[in-house]
Amino acid sequence: MDRIPILQMGRNLLVTIQVDMQDQTALQLQDDLSAKIEATGANGVLIDISALEIVDSFIGRMLASISGIARVLDATTVVVGMQPAVAITLVELGLSLEGVRTALNVERGMKLLSAAQQDHDVDAGA
Amino acid sequence: MDRIPILQMGRNLLVTIQVDMQDQTALQLQDDLSAKIEATGANGVLIDISALEIVDSFIGRMLASISGIARVLDATTVVVGMQPAVAITLVELGLSLEGVRTALNVERGMKLLSAAQQDHDVDAGA
Repeated sequence: MDRIPILQMGRNLLVTIQVDMQDQTALQLQDDLSAKIEATGANGVLIDISALEIVDSFIGRMLASISGIARVLDATTVVVGMQPAVAITLVELGLSLEGVRTALNVERGMKLLSAAQQDHDVDAGA
Repeated sequence: MDRIPILQMGRNLLVTIQVDMQDQTALQLQDDLSAKIEATGANGVLIDISALEIVDSFIGRMLASISGIARVLDATTVVVGMQPAVAITLVELGLSLEGVRTALNVERGMKLLSAAQQDHDVDAGA
């Protein structure tokens, strides 16, 4: 199993990361996600990492890179569900996930995304 | 990684099954899900199996069993995202997933759940 499913919920895409990501899986996810953003016109991406007990610099870079790709495709990315121990380790390692927005859980992440979408619609004059 | 994360979205719980389930993982999921239904008062459970390329009789029974447990806890379960090839194989094997409601994708599953919740609220006189 080397493909992480991407679920569409309204204007948002939801990805739940459950497995320890290998390079290949991470690249596949980037490809799949950018294709899905283009195909669906989604402008929010929610990545749940509550199952991850370790987030190393590889995963950190991957999250930053997905967030950057989504941004140029006009979508906001929010990473949710980080375990407290993971947050502690990240900061101790000096990885601050710059450019990546976070929220405590899916519900708060969704709120953040819909607020971002309202701003976006106002800017676009919709 | 032997725990499948359960995400809460409003009155619904969302589970994305990505790995080939072992007995232990399946039992853990049943336990976690029933605890989460009780803790959150959720009355809808959405199980996404779009990543599964094979659904054998073990997974079939597990889905039926989760659906049964959720029902006695007053929650409706909908299985979404089944791949066409999986559906063909299931029927050929004589596994009809009795008692399990299905929908094409997460969005349709959510609609089904909110319809069930409206009926539920009317029945409860809410």
